[in-house]
Amino acid sequence: MSQVQRMSRLMAKTLRDDPADAETLSHKLLVRAGYVRRTSAGLWSWLPLGKKVLDNISRVVREEMDAIGAQEVLLPALLPKEPYEASGRWDEYGDLLFRLKDRKGGDYLLGPTHEEIFTQVVKDQCTSYKDLPVMLYQIQTKYRDEARPRSGVLRGREFQMKDSYSFDTTDEGLAESYALHRAAYQKIFTRIGLDYRIVSAVSGAMGGSDSEEFLAPAGAGEDTFADCPNCDYAANTEAVTFQGAVAETVEHGPVEELDTPDTPTIETLAAHLGVPASATLKNLLVKVDGEITAVGVPGDREVDLGKLGEHLAPAVVELVTAEDFEDRPDLVRGYVGPQGLKIRYIADPRVAPGTAWVTGANKPDTHARDVVVGRDFEVDDYLDVVVVEAGDPCPACGTGLNLDRAIEIGHIFQLGRKYADTFQLDVLGQQGKPVRVTMGSYGIGVSRAVAAIAEQTADEQGLCWPREIAPADVHVVAAGKALQTELAVDVSEQLAAAGLRVLVDERPGVSPGVKFTDAELIGVPKILVAGRRSADGVVELKDRRTGEREELTVAEAVARLTA
Amino acid sequence: MSQVQRMSRLMAKTLRDDPADAETLSHKLLVRAGYVRRTSAGLWSWLPLGKKVLDNISRVVREEMDAIGAQEVLLPALLPKEPYEASGRWDEYGDLLFRLKDRKGGDYLLGPTHEEIFTQVVKDQCTSYKDLPVMLYQIQTKYRDEARPRSGVLRGREFQMKDSYSFDTTDEGLAESYALHRAAYQKIFTRIGLDYRIVSAVSGAMGGSDSEEFLAPAGAGEDTFADCPNCDYAANTEAVTFQGAVAETVEHGPVEELDTPDTPTIETLAAHLGVPASATLKNLLVKVDGEITAVGVPGDREVDLGKLGEHLAPAVVELVTAEDFEDRPDLVRGYVGPQGLKIRYIADPRVAPGTAWVTGANKPDTHARDVVVGRDFEVDDYLDVVVVEAGDPCPACGTGLNLDRAIEIGHIFQLGRKYADTFQLDVLGQQGKPVRVTMGSYGIGVSRAVAAIAEQTADEQGLCWPREIAPADVHVVAAGKALQTELAVDVSEQLAAAGLRVLVDERPGVSPGVKFTDAELIGVPKILVAGRRSADGVVELKDRRTGEREELTVAEAVARLTA
Repeated sequence: MSQVQRMSRLMAKTLRDDPADAETLSHKLLVRAGYVRRTSAGLWSWLPLGKKVLDNISRVVREEMDAIGAQEVLLPALLPKEPYEASGRWDEYGDLLFRLKDRKGGDYLLGPTHEEIFTQVVKDQCTSYKDLPVMLYQIQTKYRDEARPRSGVLRGREFQMKDSYSFDTTDEGLAESYALHRAAYQKIFTRIGLDYRIVSAVSGAMGGSDSEEFLAPAGAGEDTFADCPNCDYAANTEAVTFQGAVAETVEHGPVEELDTPDTPTIETLAAHLGVPASATLKNLLVKVDGEITAVGVPGDREVDLGKLGEHLAPAVVELVTAEDFEDRPDLVRGYVGPQGLKIRYIADPRVAPGTAWVTGANKPDTHARDVVVGRDFEVDDYLDVVVVEAGDPCPACGTGLNLDRAIEIGHIFQLGRKYADTFQLDVLGQQGKPVRVTMGSYGIGVSRAVAAIAEQTADEQGLCWPREIAPADVHVVAAGKALQTELAVDVSEQLAAAGLRVLVDERPGVSPGVKFTDAELIGVPKILVAGRRSADGVVELKDRRTGEREELTVAEAVARLTA
Repeated sequence: MSQVQRMSRLMAKTLRDDPADAETLSHKLLVRAGYVRRTSAGLWSWLPLGKKVLDNISRVVREEMDAIGAQEVLLPALLPKEPYEASGRWDEYGDLLFRLKDRKGGDYLLGPTHEEIFTQVVKDQCTSYKDLPVMLYQIQTKYRDEARPRSGVLRGREFQMKDSYSFDTTDEGLAESYALHRAAYQKIFTRIGLDYRIVSAVSGAMGGSDSEEFLAPAGAGEDTFADCPNCDYAANTEAVTFQGAVAETVEHGPVEELDTPDTPTIETLAAHLGVPASATLKNLLVKVDGEITAVGVPGDREVDLGKLGEHLAPAVVELVTAEDFEDRPDLVRGYVGPQGLKIRYIADPRVAPGTAWVTGANKPDTHARDVVVGRDFEVDDYLDVVVVEAGDPCPACGTGLNLDRAIEIGHIFQLGRKYADTFQLDVLGQQGKPVRVTMGSYGIGVSRAVAAIAEQTADEQGLCWPREIAPADVHVVAAGKALQTELAVDVSEQLAAAGLRVLVDERPGVSPGVKFTDAELIGVPKILVAGRRSADGVVELKDRRTGEREELTVAEAVARLTA
């Protein structure tokens, strides 16, 4: 039998005002409704109501992970440095990693994610292809020392995460483990009531399906994704690919130099010449493994250095500094143009063959007009490097894309053999020879999901939970004196006996108005009020989301709720 | 419907040999049976079988904590320094505390226990006596940087603990919260199948019931407790009180000085004089807040400096050093006697009025005989300060005590107002004035309980779990070929459909002998074998603990197991 939770005893003090430091809706409401309290920057205490929502999400995650045959384990959160040093992540994580020493001076870290340790566990446990495939998961406390922990539990420094890992001997096996996880994630997010999109997370260069993100659209989200209003295309903005501009065959006049003093920016240049910024060619200088390289994009676009770095990896991309110009009279700061330039020239596909541009003339205070791609200069490499903007064409259908904010709630990744190579994870294959194992890695932000659901479902009155994860099924309000309180407690006992999770507000000396406001704020899906007609055994049943209410006898209300 | 776990897929590689570094039975067996693996010193990975046992114990703990009205929360494990500095524990914990800095240089710790943070939560949440009493708990990962992490999960540096805290306005309320916890702990330990004793944890000076330990007798335990074979008295050895020796009225001769060269120790002295060590009086010199003080105990007993310190707290007790003798010609090293001594003299109650002793004569190479308490010297304070030994009288009935080894699995503590004073935790009382809150703190070592149960229940064949916490209800063994495997899987499905948790060993190419050995090692309470008589639909049901076995039809076996 479920227990009735009395509000008079519940550790959930509601607040009328938003916490001063809260910016997002979920942060404000989860604090105001008594679900969480801040212990320190990015470190949150989950109070009873919050813990119940967290547990409900964890339960759904467990059920769906178990259903695909994944096995639950629990690895330490405090981890030795060595495996992370071997994988390179001890350094790569930079300041994001919490590092510490033990009493003997040994180096440790607080695990941000556990690829290394799972690889070691499987290396210890599995020796033959017969032991694979295997999928392991844990729901565990994770750590990241965020530079600006904010948005409440949406981005904490300590958080709950479900991380799982698949181990296969073949690429086909990995694809299958990945597909199982993808399907399980769809079930999980649907069950917990999240509106979500699955988006490609990396560019097509690595294969469309090898990493996807599950995003919950929400204004408070820190991720931006591109969304086609016409077809079902959606992608992380970094993964959107531009489907090549068409080469132009129009005849252009010869290159013409223009006197352009005091035009240090694209804006001033465009205004001076009376042309749109999109008619100008911006040439960004970077160093690629130390070699100065120019990157040309239309003047109205920004270079996405992340995208550029990903295209050129493992080469290191840096911005040029003033010193880099010292021995290079050929590079005239602010007036660089691709024509006659003696360095590598990378261009965005929009800078298509045959197109003409206004660009630097490689002389101070001078620009050039009608500089034509393929006639006046050559592009060494075409790479899609601009920041995606709303209205850019959908790679699938060409329709202008929308850009939306979202919260990343899940990420699935075909890792391949990176970690298996690091730790030499082989099993004996069917032919009797060692076979290198291939891995997948899959994560769900469990505590973040609480905030994401709050963001998507809350209204002006407060939180508004989907039933499967709500902290209770019914919130019973005693709106009156002894008679109402007695009826409220009695109905609560009946509902609990029928297996429902019941919260009853029987606080003495608290007005019905305050109780109603708290009930709306706390957001249990059904609110049952023992009010004026209690003497007749009539109660009011209200749907928290729709606001619909009806008067019912106690028996009818119990029947309705337990149906 | 429960799922059937197939051994062919289970991440639980059994080992025939004990791990080289394992000293205790539970450490050996939990590793050999594939329940846990060591990730680093004192840091353990819980594999699927171990995780199930851990979860089962957690479930029982939750049910009993909920039953007494405690509310579950989850506080951070990574905690800011300030509250622990305020309570003094940032320093007091010494090397046991894992300390770290964040990217901004702020000081943090990994929580060993959470009194400070719970006090802050309640200060934030509760303002009136009407909000109390309240009991909060969490099941959480805790950290202690043990000097010598050993004994497997019995003493890890990261471990699972249930910690709870009660908050009351009155001493009577605290006593009630304490009693509720005590009763819940009895239910929990009984349900999870532990043989345990409740022992007083501190001396009677602070009140007999204000701290008790739950100890699981086991040879691998690191705690020693005194146990009366005649009555129900049991106590931590530090808490055993000596019920005063009776004053003697025998007439003794006058003090006689003896030439005793080369007798630097009690042993050499006793041998030289031909008397038992118990006839000599040992005088230990210590400094109490810097003042030299003598502590007299019978020569065959040791001073328990912990007990002495507790008696004299908050005074600081230190041992004397050679320098302390430099300006004190009255103190003759190795030959100190209480007679004529000009310093404070503390004695164990065994040094009773009227008793005569051989002791130092305060002259080099000289002892004195027939030095009588009350005639030749006075005792300033009688304090029970000796290390308890087997055979010491039971404080309750006088019978000689046994000393036994045990594992501490729970601790309940009436803290009083220490933390409430630190954080000024007051609520508005019934009279409208602030009332300081009084607290209790209660812990159960959840991961340690796994090892404690293993220690108490294992036999020569392996682990042997009580049903409530076993990783499965039934271990089905396919002992044969296709026919047996088919039957084993079929029976397993039937049992799972009836709600049982089933592990089925259907590993192809593994001999029945290996499967039997593994089943005994893994320790599920019931073992069902599909063997020689499978063609007749007859299986063998074996009780893991008693070894009793009987042949049954499949229908009979299913009925028996699901009864």
